[in-house]
Amino acid sequence: MIYLDNAATTAPSKSALEKAQIFNEEKYFNPSTLYSDGLNCAKEIKLAKENLLKNIGGINHELIFTSCGSESDNMAIFCSVKRGTFVTSKGEHSAVYKSFLELKNRGLKTHFVDLNSDGTVNVNELIETVKSTNADFVSIVHVNNETGGINDVNNIAKQIKSLNRKIVFHADGVQAYGKIPYRLSNDIDLYSISAHKINALKGVGALVRKKGVNLSPLIFGGGQENGLRSGTENVFGIKVFEYAAQEKYALIKENYQRISEIKSYILNNLNRENFIVISGEKSSPYILTISAKGLRGEVVMHALESEGVIVGNGSACSSKNRFSRVIEACGYDNAVLDGVIRLSFSIDTTIEDAVAAVNKLNDTVEKLKGILK
Amino acid sequence: MIYLDNAATTAPSKSALEKAQIFNEEKYFNPSTLYSDGLNCAKEIKLAKENLLKNIGGINHELIFTSCGSESDNMAIFCSVKRGTFVTSKGEHSAVYKSFLELKNRGLKTHFVDLNSDGTVNVNELIETVKSTNADFVSIVHVNNETGGINDVNNIAKQIKSLNRKIVFHADGVQAYGKIPYRLSNDIDLYSISAHKINALKGVGALVRKKGVNLSPLIFGGGQENGLRSGTENVFGIKVFEYAAQEKYALIKENYQRISEIKSYILNNLNRENFIVISGEKSSPYILTISAKGLRGEVVMHALESEGVIVGNGSACSSKNRFSRVIEACGYDNAVLDGVIRLSFSIDTTIEDAVAAVNKLNDTVEKLKGILK
Repeated sequence: MIYLDNAATTAPSKSALEKAQIFNEEKYFNPSTLYSDGLNCAKEIKLAKENLLKNIGGINHELIFTSCGSESDNMAIFCSVKRGTFVTSKGEHSAVYKSFLELKNRGLKTHFVDLNSDGTVNVNELIETVKSTNADFVSIVHVNNETGGINDVNNIAKQIKSLNRKIVFHADGVQAYGKIPYRLSNDIDLYSISAHKINALKGVGALVRKKGVNLSPLIFGGGQENGLRSGTENVFGIKVFEYAAQEKYALIKENYQRISEIKSYILNNLNRENFIVISGEKSSPYILTISAKGLRGEVVMHALESEGVIVGNGSACSSKNRFSRVIEACGYDNAVLDGVIRLSFSIDTTIEDAVAAVNKLNDTVEKLKGILK
Repeated sequence: MIYLDNAATTAPSKSALEKAQIFNEEKYFNPSTLYSDGLNCAKEIKLAKENLLKNIGGINHELIFTSCGSESDNMAIFCSVKRGTFVTSKGEHSAVYKSFLELKNRGLKTHFVDLNSDGTVNVNELIETVKSTNADFVSIVHVNNETGGINDVNNIAKQIKSLNRKIVFHADGVQAYGKIPYRLSNDIDLYSISAHKINALKGVGALVRKKGVNLSPLIFGGGQENGLRSGTENVFGIKVFEYAAQEKYALIKENYQRISEIKSYILNNLNRENFIVISGEKSSPYILTISAKGLRGEVVMHALESEGVIVGNGSACSSKNRFSRVIEACGYDNAVLDGVIRLSFSIDTTIEDAVAAVNKLNDTVEKLKGILK
């Protein structure tokens, strides 16, 4: 099997799992307890925070563990700014988009800014909207999970802060962390990351917060995570996250280069008579979104599946709608929208996978078109 | 080491971990995807729900996976009844207690009903309060995590429903599930459970809901869990929960009997000149709370730790306060409150552990008293 749906989830790193196994077998204690075995678990969590932050240079930031990227996004949106005007883009992950719809339900003012055709936000429109609405909170995805479009969130945050330093800026970094080399600037107030997108486990995420930024709990209780996120910490999952991230960041530039070559190979060998490329030239190397125009993405996906190639069709999180809301906002017509498939890579992806995948993509779509004629 | 802090957390079951390992190694797919490997993961989640529910007979109930017991409690409290009067007891876990304080902060009416000396709720006072305040929502812990006191939640719910069927009744079942043999009655609207208290992993919990009971999401996004809990499902953690629960329920009555004997052995051999027993006669066999009156629980805990016996002092979740809020509400004076320690058992606890533990308890406290004289 060639697995090319790594933006949906990744295979957990065997070495990270092995290294963390001790937290299930021996060091399974509750980190809130006061005996030394418990205190040691609390120390391990602290170390994981430091290491996860160090990877993105967050010396003025701190990290709160959550159960997933979605929870981190929700916490950023519901638990920092409590009233006023909230601005985001039409290209956000559902965890942001649906939270904004909920803000709207609750009577708060929300604005959804248009996208460019590669899925990045229209920055001029964003800045104008923030200015004209006197926005209090802005959330922009770092790497668009459906197109791979990269928003320069440091630069966007800088422009927004120059309008009004009190605006709280959040970025969803779930598809960026561990993949795109970058440093968090001091203009980023809140930043969401997730473990299972970088070969760690489902069930762990984090919200990175600039020190001093207002934040209240989404989940109340025993006061874990400095009172910001109650519930016994998932020590094992947290350590797998830390270890998998270390593996990624040890070679982040090399991986970026290698995955870029894999993506280029596919792009260069794709039969352009049958495919339209949606991902932009400057998009994340880890995501390649194309459309088999005139066919249905789901049909192509299943045909490829029977050939042993697993691809995504749109975001796994919104797989119940006909069209992707995000690709639609990129400005494509229905024929293109129908045919969308997403190839997404991980450090496990090889050039051999790419060669086989692009051949099967070309053959499969050619065959399906023949059947439809 | 003799580990007697199983109410804080338990050692994960090796067999459950091994059986679930395939969900990290091979079946790591995102359950929201539409290819067969993804759909199969969704089926595994469905099966886990059925099996976890079957254990408590919940044929009129359904189950929503969350990240922990605390999240389940929060969801029950914040996402069902949205206005009106909320009633709970003074014996609740922080996840309920602090959520009620937050309701109060938000301007809602809250009432905290008194406890009996064993930590169970004063049922007459509860019913009177529900009646006189025209309550809309009631939350009562099934097994008190600090004393082991068992509230007969089926009976309490029945009495409450006979006052007004529209009242929503929630029980925190975190210390009951997998330990106390019982069936969920149709009067229980919402019921919280947690994985890591029954030899499964931290990072997984569930909210059991009677079909039709109003519930909205606490976390918005991709619409997982029928739109009620977004975020990629923690398939591995969910399967470990299912398997560990199966192991518990296969022998739940036998375990109950065996652990009862262990608790009795300790009770019968404890030097009553130095210890006061806080847990009531009808409390959960899995929890034995005592006080080394005149000493500080933390000191006793550390002295026992150096002897290789791990016990808790009060709830791990509120270990930062001098006194336990819950034991205080049982009506004890400061000298008793200071000396509280909690022994809590799991199916891994043996009679040999009990023999060694009670000897060390008696010796340690005798020694400490000698030093203080």
